Amino acid sequence: MSEDLFEPLFVPDEIREALGGRAWLQAMLDAEAALALAEARAGLIPDEAAVTIARYCDADRFDPEEIGRKGRAAGNPVPPLVRALTAAVSGEASGDAGSYVHKGATSQDIVDTAAMLVARRAVDLILVEVDGIAAACARLADEHRATIMAGRTLLQQALPTTFGLKAAGWLVVVLEARRQLFSVRESGLAAQLGGAAGTLASLGDSGTEVLKEYARELKLAEPLVPWHTDRSRIAKIGGALSLLSGALWKISLDIILMAQTEVGEVSEPAGAGRGGSSTLPHKRNPILSVTAAACSRRVQDLARTLQSAMAGEHERAAGAWHAEWEALSDALALTGGTAAAVREATEGLEVYPEKMKENLDASGGLLLTERVTTLVAEHLGRLKAHDLVEATSKRTLESGKSLRDELLAEPALVEVRSEENIDDALDPAGYLGSTGAFVDRALGLYRKEVQA
Amino acid sequence: MSEDLFEPLFVPDEIREALGGRAWLQAMLDAEAALALAEARAGLIPDEAAVTIARYCDADRFDPEEIGRKGRAAGNPVPPLVRALTAAVSGEASGDAGSYVHKGATSQDIVDTAAMLVARRAVDLILVEVDGIAAACARLADEHRATIMAGRTLLQQALPTTFGLKAAGWLVVVLEARRQLFSVRESGLAAQLGGAAGTLASLGDSGTEVLKEYARELKLAEPLVPWHTDRSRIAKIGGALSLLSGALWKISLDIILMAQTEVGEVSEPAGAGRGGSSTLPHKRNPILSVTAAACSRRVQDLARTLQSAMAGEHERAAGAWHAEWEALSDALALTGGTAAAVREATEGLEVYPEKMKENLDASGGLLLTERVTTLVAEHLGRLKAHDLVEATSKRTLESGKSLRDELLAEPALVEVRSEENIDDALDPAGYLGSTGAFVDRALGLYRKEVQA
Amino acid sequence: MSEDLFEPLFVPDEIREALGGRAWLQAMLDAEAALALAEARAGLIPDEAAVTIARYCDADRFDPEEIGRKGRAAGNPVPPLVRALTAAVSGEASGDAGSYVHKGATSQDIVDTAAMLVARRAVDLILVEVDGIAAACARLADEHRATIMAGRTLLQQALPTTFGLKAAGWLVVVLEARRQLFSVRESGLAAQLGGAAGTLASLGDSGTEVLKEYARELKLAEPLVPWHTDRSRIAKIGGALSLLSGALWKISLDIILMAQTEVGEVSEPAGAGRGGSSTLPHKRNPILSVTAAACSRRVQDLARTLQSAMAGEHERAAGAWHAEWEALSDALALTGGTAAAVREATEGLEVYPEKMKENLDASGGLLLTERVTTLVAEHLGRLKAHDLVEATSKRTLESGKSLRDELLAEPALVEVRSEENIDDALDPAGYLGSTGAFVDRALGLYRKEVQA
Amino acid sequence: MSEDLFEPLFVPDEIREALGGRAWLQAMLDAEAALALAEARAGLIPDEAAVTIARYCDADRFDPEEIGRKGRAAGNPVPPLVRALTAAVSGEASGDAGSYVHKGATSQDIVDTAAMLVARRAVDLILVEVDGIAAACARLADEHRATIMAGRTLLQQALPTTFGLKAAGWLVVVLEARRQLFSVRESGLAAQLGGAAGTLASLGDSGTEVLKEYARELKLAEPLVPWHTDRSRIAKIGGALSLLSGALWKISLDIILMAQTEVGEVSEPAGAGRGGSSTLPHKRNPILSVTAAACSRRVQDLARTLQSAMAGEHERAAGAWHAEWEALSDALALTGGTAAAVREATEGLEVYPEKMKENLDASGGLLLTERVTTLVAEHLGRLKAHDLVEATSKRTLESGKSLRDELLAEPALVEVRSEENIDDALDPAGYLGSTGAFVDRALGLYRKEVQA
Repeated sequence: MSEDLFEPLFVPDEIREALGGRAWLQAMLDAEAALALAEARAGLIPDEAAVTIARYCDADRFDPEEIGRKGRAAGNPVPPLVRALTAAVSGEASGDAGSYVHKGATSQDIVDTAAMLVARRAVDLILVEVDGIAAACARLADEHRATIMAGRTLLQQALPTTFGLKAAGWLVVVLEARRQLFSVRESGLAAQLGGAAGTLASLGDSGTEVLKEYARELKLAEPLVPWHTDRSRIAKIGGALSLLSGALWKISLDIILMAQTEVGEVSEPAGAGRGGSSTLPHKRNPILSVTAAACSRRVQDLARTLQSAMAGEHERAAGAWHAEWEALSDALALTGGTAAAVREATEGLEVYPEKMKENLDASGGLLLTERVTTLVAEHLGRLKAHDLVEATSKRTLESGKSLRDELLAEPALVEVRSEENIDDALDPAGYLGSTGAFVDRALGLYRKEVQA
Repeated sequence: MSEDLFEPLFVPDEIREALGGRAWLQAMLDAEAALALAEARAGLIPDEAAVTIARYCDADRFDPEEIGRKGRAAGNPVPPLVRALTAAVSGEASGDAGSYVHKGATSQDIVDTAAMLVARRAVDLILVEVDGIAAACARLADEHRATIMAGRTLLQQALPTTFGLKAAGWLVVVLEARRQLFSVRESGLAAQLGGAAGTLASLGDSGTEVLKEYARELKLAEPLVPWHTDRSRIAKIGGALSLLSGALWKISLDIILMAQTEVGEVSEPAGAGRGGSSTLPHKRNPILSVTAAACSRRVQDLARTLQSAMAGEHERAAGAWHAEWEALSDALALTGGTAAAVREATEGLEVYPEKMKENLDASGGLLLTERVTTLVAEHLGRLKAHDLVEATSKRTLESGKSLRDELLAEPALVEVRSEENIDDALDPAGYLGSTGAFVDRALGLYRKEVQA
Repeated sequence: MSEDLFEPLFVPDEIREALGGRAWLQAMLDAEAALALAEARAGLIPDEAAVTIARYCDADRFDPEEIGRKGRAAGNPVPPLVRALTAAVSGEASGDAGSYVHKGATSQDIVDTAAMLVARRAVDLILVEVDGIAAACARLADEHRATIMAGRTLLQQALPTTFGLKAAGWLVVVLEARRQLFSVRESGLAAQLGGAAGTLASLGDSGTEVLKEYARELKLAEPLVPWHTDRSRIAKIGGALSLLSGALWKISLDIILMAQTEVGEVSEPAGAGRGGSSTLPHKRNPILSVTAAACSRRVQDLARTLQSAMAGEHERAAGAWHAEWEALSDALALTGGTAAAVREATEGLEVYPEKMKENLDASGGLLLTERVTTLVAEHLGRLKAHDLVEATSKRTLESGKSLRDELLAEPALVEVRSEENIDDALDPAGYLGSTGAFVDRALGLYRKEVQA
Repeated sequence: MSEDLFEPLFVPDEIREALGGRAWLQAMLDAEAALALAEARAGLIPDEAAVTIARYCDADRFDPEEIGRKGRAAGNPVPPLVRALTAAVSGEASGDAGSYVHKGATSQDIVDTAAMLVARRAVDLILVEVDGIAAACARLADEHRATIMAGRTLLQQALPTTFGLKAAGWLVVVLEARRQLFSVRESGLAAQLGGAAGTLASLGDSGTEVLKEYARELKLAEPLVPWHTDRSRIAKIGGALSLLSGALWKISLDIILMAQTEVGEVSEPAGAGRGGSSTLPHKRNPILSVTAAACSRRVQDLARTLQSAMAGEHERAAGAWHAEWEALSDALALTGGTAAAVREATEGLEVYPEKMKENLDASGGLLLTERVTTLVAEHLGRLKAHDLVEATSKRTLESGKSLRDELLAEPALVEVRSEENIDDALDPAGYLGSTGAFVDRALGLYRKEVQA
């Protein structure tokens, strides 16, 4: 409702435009034009009429708001659009082309096909952002393969890891989401043409031929059967957007957490006034990630609407179908908003390796307790080692000394506690396991799927 | 995104306007004006400055789309609005009033307060529709207290009921939802003022006084503490809208089902072309109810977004807050759309009592089997009666004869099967139990809560 | 909570068992066993220890309820299970095998891997039901390719269609959902092994080798990187279950609507007391479809939980992960319940072609108005024809005469209204368009994807 | 499905028991007993029969799992329970009491009434936890009214606040949620009795009398009309649970964030092994809050299921009703789990005021920039002051010096930069605004609503 105010805040202009009322109108008109041309090819209407109709299928001739308001009586925008198009064609063109407008089609054919066209355009724009994110994550993974930081589970420091591995993790989930969205784009978008009840009755024997030409004209997949009653296409778009949003939400959450004042391991890029506060001049808010997190939340619930719309009554749903239009539009727009924000955040992310190191060291070696436990377990067995190191850790926390000192003071560790042993065990760089290998594997996937 | 096309289809213009970008801007400016006036009353800023600021707080001076776009850097629309307002006040007014704009407030104070003002206006418009629905349901319940129809469970005819009781059932749930929404309107909408972290630090000792005056000026409740971190107000608005949408979805679903071609018990009012089909001239679609059902579905998921936004981080949520704005606006708009459609549908509902009777009779008396069972049970016990009547029912279904004939032919019923007994048992008007009493109770509640 | 009462009502015993506490325990133990064997192969622990550990990995040795209760302190069931397993191995086996239990793993490795194993088993059971549904739909589509019935849009009769095409529509969406679920089963289930922070630090240089052997042992995919932080696998299972539930909900909704007393076109199979009512002996409730609809609703919201769990903090989510376990289990179980019910309903569906014909004829030819319009449009143009037929339809509805009679009496139709023309136009069998072709295309897909 | 394993982990035993199959069975039997007694009072059945029936209404006589499995045919557990109860009464008792079992009722009467009884018991248990949380928050607010800490917006330090105000904020939202839940408990739980279609047909003229006695016997509210078709009661329970979960999720999120290794301002109480890690002996995970966050997430989606169940068909929903049972049970259980965990976390929360101070000081005074800006603005105007302090803040961040030093070095501040002025401005204790007043107001509400 308040889109003119809030949307520009969240969604880039190009994506907004691709999903606006004018874009939807043009997509509906593209469907009408393709229908006429397909019917001409099938010999059902004169070529000239088709060409004339196609010429008038230009959104600039019509007013979305007026079409929408007039659509209230029919429950969808197509009847007033068809009336207006017919009037335009009939009024200005010579001949009877007007009588061939919308022939054999039903409102749902036009709206569903338009939804596919609009979704294709929006998905293309989203995929550009996603490619940017993947490239940024790949670069971060590569550059920071050796940047040691604390791995955190349940928001507690657990073990050393690298920022490269964290970025590689972002990369892998983004690639997965990209694959889903790309697959939807390549094979999940199909033309819709079924006529009033999905039988193409009024096209006689030419139904499947017209369907084929119609789909070809629109460069959409030809469906096996009309999908009035099969909303899996819409649900799958919703699913792919939800998956992508989830992936990007994860990234933005990690950035927000790392950018905390007390953690300070990254900053979002400082743009023109970005992240500023009206009252607090010192603040540098991670506003891109916050924006992404906000949009992602919403996409998840919008996708829920699309999912539940699968259960429609008979040959056209009494409400579920109508609920799809804005939910789909908004889900695409907000996913676009999320992706654009995360792209900017990852592309320009400022990373502070020294602060990562400092945070890791702050716990006085406690982060290496697993390694120490392993070392001790070689001598005392795993359970006994666990209990002993746990006790030493507690003493460390209480005494304020370092774990190193407490370990050297522990009588039960007489067998293992050479300084050298202890220092080795407490060097985080020596306790990174397969971190590098995992980074390589993620980068390999990136090169295979995106760069190739 | 496609609001200029789809929204006019679903949402009445007045409600759209109340929730549009301009309305939000005005509400934010109302908050700024109230803040200045309150601070003047508390002696924090000069009276004259406050009056000047208030004079410039007019949405027509600002462009929602531009404010929105500029808000991207800060993640919300307030900083650019404050800049623009300050510039306007400073540029055109004499004096230093500009330096008192937004004093002590944070962006969230302005957006949250605006949300309350916008919600109040929208809720008022929704409540008008709801009152219309309640009146229509009360009238239907009253007029049709003796209109017998089939009661249906799991979409199977079960027992006779009256259309009056069905309408009374609608009435009761609408009244419940109305009570919730009214309660939110009366006590759930509070001014927000806390400053950057909810402490009103920059107002010194005058914080609570300013808060009180600010709320009074806006005619909003004064909160006990700033509610930056307590989003229960927003969640409760969502809950009330979800409840109302659920209630109205139930009504629209019943209408859609009764309007089915094969049932034909009601029609929606025929308006100018309403319910028509672009290709099927005979159709009379229950398009108001379909519209209501579509909007209701969406409200439920939008309310879900508002619910989950309660879990925000520390003194301002990093994303959850930002997700509220459009979700709230859309939930209010679509609830308005639902309510307007159901109001029109119920106010003009065409009811066909003869068809209701015909449908009831179509099952050859089978609908009275419970009553027959009760009669038989007096002689044979409940379980034996159940089994015997079940067998007779099956024979009736198979033979195509009436239940009456099959009962009279049943040897085990020798004790009960006088024709008079059977005919009495099979008269639906004699088997309505407390139907009338329940209608009266519902109407009594209506008179008490609405008409009084 | 009340699973011992309600679950048996909704979910078949075999699926319940596959998802019960014992099954989860066994899956966790399978993961521990595979870990030990993989580590032995990598030379990290003695072969003998691995064999011993594997021998004790038997769920019958442990009590789910006790493990669960003890898991409360750690927030997951693995620590008490590892303690119990270690005690069992250490206590009863000779040697030090106990000290090698769970080596290098973290709780999430075990729970995530178990989730994959449990999901695989449940998905296999679900796919058996889905294959049954697909076969039943294919049979119905084939047998009823010429069974004419009313096509209904917005629950109003619109045009003739065939029950074969309706069943073909069910088939196509089921096949789509099957493909998604099958793809998840084949490539979406991966072993999880990352150690405390996803680095496999404590396995030194052998991390990736152990991961490979571990996955091979479990017959799960080997992930490129540990997926602690990448929850797309879980979200995709949720998505596939949601899609399948949506598809089956659609079928069950159509059955419920066709089984309405006033429609009477199908009945669910009558089983031992199935669909009976405690008080209404004549009722035959479509209880399988009702059960399916109930379960499907729930799956959609459970999948929502799984979707939103993607946004987890750093190297292990503080809550989102823990929310997955029961939501996943319940989503699998209820999808199984849906599928089993729809299978039974479709396999035994009783179809009444005469009643379908009767319903179609009840509108006195109005259902063929589109065809009549087309015929008339050839002479008068589309818009004029639409208006004229609309007027005639209204007269038909008001007069109670047939459309045929009203058309023959219409003066404007003098050019077209030979009786023969009219009768041809009003024969539904002649107005089925591409119905047969669409059925064939759906059956072709079935043969290709399932029967081959 | 896997409840025997996972539920004990999340939900306290007492709450589990109150919501288990046995508890539901007992509640259904309580409804049957109350029905018989009410009918006896109304003179519809013999007193002796009612007493006999009531005596057999003991859940220990029946097996939930068997009842559930047999309920599959009817789609709900009541028919097999009525059969079993009738058999028990008839078999063992003398007389014909068996024939009076379930007289006039339908399955939904029994399940809905049982849902109310079960909900009442569970809500009572939840409210005990909530009272504990409120008391703990009140104590924390009181004790820490002067404990200064950083207020954080978008997870960035913004301004000083007190831990007392944070706890007061928790308290206020908990009290709001408590009020909602209490209101549901006091007036939102009503007996259900309508018979097969909500008309109480088989009770003749005694319907409303029986309804009244039935409700009185069960100590539930007497509904105005049967609520088969009005699911607002269930939706409102869901709404109240969702609100409470949201409130508690907020608290748990704050605790998790404050307990971060790098923040370290609080710890959860250390219990027997609580928060320990199987591999990382030094970790102290905030496992209670994590558990609470996990349960809360799930409640939100379960409540969504209950909301959408409002839209049911005619006199009994074909699926929506059946979806309520487990969703309600699980929502109650998990809210109980959340509440128990948050109670334990808040009651035993370890608070570290020194660390709070340390974190606040870490930013070298930057947190007081708003105050400095205000001071400067008195001399230079708000906008100029904002820009100047922003520049000084940036210099501070870059130079590593303190804000104090940078301010003293700033030439433009010549008028204001006495050391005394600057030091005053930078003392957090002097910049707490209305913090104390807000704490008092929250505590006042607590005393009024809870302690009174």
